[in-house]
Parts: sequence; structure tokens; C-alpha cells
Amino acid sequence: MSDTQSPVLALAMELLRRPSITPDDAGCQQLMADFLAPLGFTIQPLKFAEVENLWAVRGQARPSLVFAGHTDVVPTGPLTRWNTPPFEPTLDENGILYARGAADMKGSLAAMMIAVKDFVTDYPEHTGAIGFLITSDEEGPAINGTVKVVEYLQAHQYPVDMCIVGEPSSTQTVGDVIKNGRRGSLNGRLTVKGIQGHIAYPHLARNPIHQVAPALAALTQEVWDQGNAFFPATSMQISNIQAGTGATNVIPGEVEILFNFRFSTEVTAAELQARTQAILQAHQLDYDIQWTLSGEPFLTPEGSLVDAAVAAIESIQGFTPELSTSGGTSDGRFIAPMGTQVVELGPVNASIHQVNEHVRAQDLETLVKIYYRILQHLLTKPTS
Amino acid sequence: MSDTQSPVLALAMELLRRPSITPDDAGCQQLMADFLAPLGFTIQPLKFAEVENLWAVRGQARPSLVFAGHTDVVPTGPLTRWNTPPFEPTLDENGILYARGAADMKGSLAAMMIAVKDFVTDYPEHTGAIGFLITSDEEGPAINGTVKVVEYLQAHQYPVDMCIVGEPSSTQTVGDVIKNGRRGSLNGRLTVKGIQGHIAYPHLARNPIHQVAPALAALTQEVWDQGNAFFPATSMQISNIQAGTGATNVIPGEVEILFNFRFSTEVTAAELQARTQAILQAHQLDYDIQWTLSGEPFLTPEGSLVDAAVAAIESIQGFTPELSTSGGTSDGRFIAPMGTQVVELGPVNASIHQVNEHVRAQDLETLVKIYYRILQHLLTKPTS
Ligand SMILES: [Zn+2]
Ligand SMILES: [Zn+2]
Repeated sequence: MSDTQSPVLALAMELLRRPSITPDDAGCQQLMADFLAPLGFTIQPLKFAEVENLWAVRGQARPSLVFAGHTDVVPTGPLTRWNTPPFEPTLDENGILYARGAADMKGSLAAMMIAVKDFVTDYPEHTGAIGFLITSDEEGPAINGTVKVVEYLQAHQYPVDMCIVGEPSSTQTVGDVIKNGRRGSLNGRLTVKGIQGHIAYPHLARNPIHQVAPALAALTQEVWDQGNAFFPATSMQISNIQAGTGATNVIPGEVEILFNFRFSTEVTAAELQARTQAILQAHQLDYDIQWTLSGEPFLTPEGSLVDAAVAAIESIQGFTPELSTSGGTSDGRFIAPMGTQVVELGPVNASIHQVNEHVRAQDLETLVKIYYRILQHLLTKPTS
Repeated sequence: MSDTQSPVLALAMELLRRPSITPDDAGCQQLMADFLAPLGFTIQPLKFAEVENLWAVRGQARPSLVFAGHTDVVPTGPLTRWNTPPFEPTLDENGILYARGAADMKGSLAAMMIAVKDFVTDYPEHTGAIGFLITSDEEGPAINGTVKVVEYLQAHQYPVDMCIVGEPSSTQTVGDVIKNGRRGSLNGRLTVKGIQGHIAYPHLARNPIHQVAPALAALTQEVWDQGNAFFPATSMQISNIQAGTGATNVIPGEVEILFNFRFSTEVTAAELQARTQAILQAHQLDYDIQWTLSGEPFLTPEGSLVDAAVAAIESIQGFTPELSTSGGTSDGRFIAPMGTQVVELGPVNASIHQVNEHVRAQDLETLVKIYYRILQHLLTKPTS
């Protein structure tokens, strides 16, 4: 492409050339800091263990609107299945930009930066404050990323009133879906113990598969809740079950089961744990269970941020976005507990985490306009 | 030991010195042939693939009484856990003979041979015929052993009216248990298919663990039969279940389950298959199932052989043996379908397939007397 390409496309390609596979930031945050500092942002690199994070803020007034995102990308997968090198961003003749991270989420980062540059140029005296909360550990264990930056912000009393997470929320057209919350995620590792023995002498053994089968039937048939206006019903899924060594004449001594709840705001993690254990106990199982809570559900049902995002999409795109809480987890789960209004709004997610990840270049232009319009709604005085 | 040791002990030790781990006969059958030929036996070695088998027969009249057994032994296990070398038979000060195969079943082979030698010496003109059906593949795949010898006997029209299998049937004292049948054994490999997917989008997937759980509960709770006077109730046991790759965010595409029936004469393998598949179909599963029948049940409820064995034990040991069909499978399952009366009668089985396998030397003497008495009951004319 020539030098006549758009600013957001040029910036996205600069980020995409950096092979920042989790947790390696590969210089992306330095590039962002160098871009934001001349716009009046105070830059605070925050490195926790091997993870680089960036906090940048312009202004100290309220409300504060923070753009959140990540510079890390998932691994490329088999290079032979890519049509173009994953870290050489390539714009094809149809205006599709191919690169690892194009949709998740360096395109969003570039759109945020250009929107903010345009906005502070047009409104140097805007109200409130603008922040960037950037990590390089969103796709990884997420231990030394957003969680730690949130602790830093709370310790240093930076209030975050509203947050736009740049995750690719859209399904067909940019802006068709805004995530205004996410379900909670709770993992269980269940070990049911029996007594190992020879299959010809079952009276000397106790088969844990036989013991757990009716309990699993009960767990999978349980209706955990009905969901609500914002959340689908809570879902429990068993991902793994394992017993036996392959020998066909041995009753195994135990069975191990991994399962996961995606849960609505109608139940709590503690309730799900108690109800699960009640079912296991009703089946008189000898069991151990280990729980890992990977995130409570969060929800931003209404308010100035959702209103601004909906209005911005309506005016730029001409349709009303769907508000959704479906899908996986995001770093929004760590930000919402500060009392922050959180929405996720980014490009189309069809190709994320796959080979030949891509984004429409035109969608990045649209995203710049949407982010700009949201800033205008929230951080300027009414003109009339 | 000196040369004054008993004939059965000397012969057992000669067999035990040969390291005949399946399918290697290590010269045991040649030793048996050399022993039996001078007693008037016609010797027929029968080698199928790598497996050596021996058929030896004395006389052509009816009834025929065949001693069946195997010269192969299971591997030694860790040598460091043996108190004496497993292929150097050692008689300790308590009269216990230690060696791999001492109980399963070279001790029995020696006892049969000495009993037959004594019997044909005392009754050179006995009625009927005496046979030996010996394989070196009982502990292995059992493909080129007894099954093939039985085919040979049928092809050459050697009727086998009665058969004593020398498997170690006794539990505390030699002769306390006779096996007069065995349960059938039927293996199933069940694959239930679902649709793989991400755990956050269960409506796009179909979880095969969830689908199979109530079917497993039904299968494990099914009463297949009540057994009968000779057999315990049919037992179904799941030995293995496996689904998932370890990833906690993926709904697996299929689940694989291995299970086994040990079944009585109240049901057939075909009935068990049909009833299993009816339960799977009632749960509307998309499944594949592969069946392997490892043996139909067999039973010798009453008759001249059982009567003779019970009477022999009563007269030698002073107690009445228990008739049992419990436990694993034996080569009796291949012999019984000829219409043969089959019993298993051998030494105490407590140490078989373990390190420091052993048998009481005195029990071998007792076994010689029991086998002799059975021969006397069945193959001599009443004296009065
Ligand atoms: Zn992302
Ligand atoms: Zn055996």
C-alpha cells in the first residue's frame, strides 16, 4: 500500500507487524505510548512479572472513559495454512486486511487511538478524562495483566466510570452486537472414588463409574436457573471424563470429571457449588471436588455508556445494536467489579483465533467513527 | 532335596525348571510325552502357528476321560520381589514349593501324570480311554491352543466324554471347591457420538457425555437375570470411560466406553446385546458398538464326572466340595461345547499370577490321590 492509506490502517499494520504472542508485547505498547504522549497523555508502564501493561490517562476530571484492550495475540497455528505470513499484514484487492491479531484486537487498538487523536484535536478542552488500560496477557493466564492494573488503579485512586473493551463483539457487521455483560465461569474437577478390583469379582470392588452415572444424569438434567432479560439460562457442561487404564478386566478405582458452569446473575458461584455438592451427596458418592472461579458474571444493563454506544452505532450505521451477554469471558470481568460501566465493542469476530485472521479495512474506519461519536456523547458539553 | 523325594514332587520340579512363559513351551510337553508314551499313550504333537500343543490318548473305548491343562506360565513380575529364583523350584522347611507355575498349573500336570501312571499300572485293562489335552497358550491370546486342538479332535472323531481341567480351583484346602462351569464373558466397546464445540456455545454442540449419562445409569441399574442354582446373577461392569482431551473449554465430540458382561446360563450373549442396544436406542443415542464374545457360559450340573469328583474328595479329604461357577474364564469354555462334562479341580489358587507363587507339596500328593480315585470311579468295573 502507498503512503496515501488511511491513518487507522497504517497504525493497525504497524501493530500487526510486531509478533506479540502472549505474553510478549514485542514493542506494541511502546508504540502506543509514543503515539499518546504527544496528545497529552500521562504514560505509566506497569510491568508485573514478565507481563507488560500500559496505563495512559489524559485529564483528571469525571467521568472517566477508559479504552481497554490487549496487545498480545494467540499463536499462529500451522503457517502452511496461512495464505500470507501472519506477521506481515496484507491488504487484499477486496479491502480485507489479513494478519494475526487483525480482529483480536490490534485493529480495535488502532481505531481507539485514531478516534482519540481526532477527538482531542477537535475538543482539546473535553470534559472528564480519557484512559487506556492495555495488557499483553489477555490470551494467557491473565494473572499479571488487567487484574494487577486494576489493583494499581484502585490503590492510586484512579476512578474508572466507564470502559469500552475493544474485543471483537460484532458478528456480521461492525456494531451489530455490543456485549454489555458476560456470564460467570466456574470450573469443577470432580474425583469419585470406588474400590478397584477384578471384573470377575464385582462384589469385592465398587465401580465408581456405576456410582457416578446417575449423579451425572441428575447434574446434566438440572435446571440451574431460567436466565433473565440479559442472560441466557445457566449452562453446565462436562468437558472431560476419564476412568480405567485400557485394561478390560479391571474395575477402576476412581473416575475424574471436569466440568464448567457459564452462569447468569440469577445464581452465584457459591450457590452452584452448594447445589452440585447436594446432588453428589444425594447419590452417596465418595468424592473430592476442586473449584476454580474464573469470573463472576457482570452486567451493565442501562446507563450513559450503553446509551452513548447505542446512539453512536445508530447514527453511524443506521441500525440499533443487539445487547448481548453470550460467549466467552473477557477482561471486562476484572474491570466491572470497580463499579465501572463496561461494554465490549469491536470488529467482526468470525476469524479470531483461526488461521487467516482478518478484518475489513472499512470496518476499522467505521469503528473510528463510532468510538469518536461515543467520546463526543460522553465527554463534551451539549452544544445547545 | 534328595532322590528320596516323592515322584509327583520330582516331576513338578522338572516341569518348573523350564521357563515356559507363554507361548514358549520350553520342552515341557516333550517331557510329558516321554513320560506318557511308555505307559501306552499314543502321542500327537499339534503345533499351530508358534503354539505347541499335545494330544495323548490311551485306548479307544468309551467313556473317555481327558485331563486338560497348560504348560505355559505368566511372566515372573519383578525378580527382586521373589524370595527365590522363579525358575529354580525351591521347597522350604515348611514343605512349600515355590516357583512360577507351581500352582497354575505345573503342579496339577505332575499330579495328573503320576495318578495316571499309578492307575494304568494297577488297572492295565481299565475301561474307556484316557487322554491328555495340553496347550502352551492358555495364559495368552488362546487362539492357537485349546480351540485348535478341539477342532482337531472333532475332525478326527475323538469323542471327549469327560474332562478334568487342572486349573487351581481350591481356595483354602485342596478340593474345597470344584468349578463345574464358568460364566460367559462378553465385551462391548461403545462409542457415543456428539458434536464438538466451545463450552460457551453449548447450543451449537451436542455433549455426548450428557447424552450417555442417563443411558449408563439405566445400564448399570438393569437387572439382567437372577442367576440360578449354579450361577450368580449376570454382572455388567464398565471398565473404561474416556472423553475430552484435557482442555476445559471444549465439549468433546465423542465418548468411548468399554464394558463387560459375566453372564449366567439364564441369558445368551445375543439377548444381552439386544437388551443393551434397546436401552441405548431408548436414550436416542448416536452410537457405534463392537461386541467380542470371549466365551459362552458352560455348566456340568450333575452326572458321572461331578459325582466321581465329589466322591473322590469326600473319601480322600473327608469333606464335601463346593460346586462353583464363579471367577474368571478357563479353557473349559472351549471343551464344553463338544458336549463334554467338564470340571476344574486343582490346587489352592491364592498365589497364582503373583510373585512367590507356591503350592504345598502335600497338596500335590493329595491331588494325585484324588485324580487316581476319580479314574478308579469312572474307568474300572464295579468290584462287587
Ligand atoms: Zn481478545
Ligand atoms: Zn491356569
